[in-house]
Amino acid sequence: MSANIEIEEGLSFVPKFDANGLITAISQDAETGIVLMVAYMNGEALNLTLQTGNAVFFSRSRKKLWKKGEESGHVQKVQQILVDCDQDCLILKVSVDQGQCHVGYQSCFYRAVKTETKDSLQFIAEKVYDPKEAYGK
Amino acid sequence: MSANIEIEEGLSFVPKFDANGLITAISQDAETGIVLMVAYMNGEALNLTLQTGNAVFFSRSRKKLWKKGEESGHVQKVQQILVDCDQDCLILKVSVDQGQCHVGYQSCFYRAVKTETKDSLQFIAEKVYDPKEAYGK
Repeated sequence: MSANIEIEEGLSFVPKFDANGLITAISQDAETGIVLMVAYMNGEALNLTLQTGNAVFFSRSRKKLWKKGEESGHVQKVQQILVDCDQDCLILKVSVDQGQCHVGYQSCFYRAVKTETKDSLQFIAEKVYDPKEAYGK
Repeated sequence: MSANIEIEEGLSFVPKFDANGLITAISQDAETGIVLMVAYMNGEALNLTLQTGNAVFFSRSRKKLWKKGEESGHVQKVQQILVDCDQDCLILKVSVDQGQCHVGYQSCFYRAVKTETKDSLQFIAEKVYDPKEAYGK
């Protein structure tokens, strides 16, 4: 198989990290299909996720490993990891028991673009926890 | 509101493009919740998507606008656009009538990491169209 076909149609897991050593990782609720958040992993974060079964990301703002839930307790238990055709993006199918967005919502995607105006948003969800309590511990 | 709170809790749609002028866009089947693909948009692609109602991306490899389906005919009709807390990622809720991955699958995420070995993949889907026919036109 050519390199491209091997990546797209092969059975080897060869995740493609970008110039910063990161790969995009989408957390999707395994039960409901709701996309919870999008974050990034470096090789170490991916290895820790595979080894521990809990989602570990790399925080681009804090420039360090980010064990999801280390502060809030809102961990993501990884049921399955999917990879896309060119192996530069992952989906983590996760089970969660609490809200996953630091703003207080179940998902980070709690607003939709208003179709009428195209430059304003509308809320499509309600907060499921109080971030002050979760992060104030 | 502080700038951060305005971005996270406000009603203005202020998409945050990265250093390359791109924002991550996830296409998710509006009906089934299946994540179909992950791509990128520049400002023009996003405006065209908003104006036309069909998904338009920016191809990083070809370095040009990519009207999804322009070759294959497999367009994505955008029902709703969601934005995440820090407004650096979009979800397009789309309706589709054909497979969306250029390899021939409904979704680009047609393989899962095998939990036993962690370095190999297993197929979790079957092809839904013949890419040679779709792209050979």
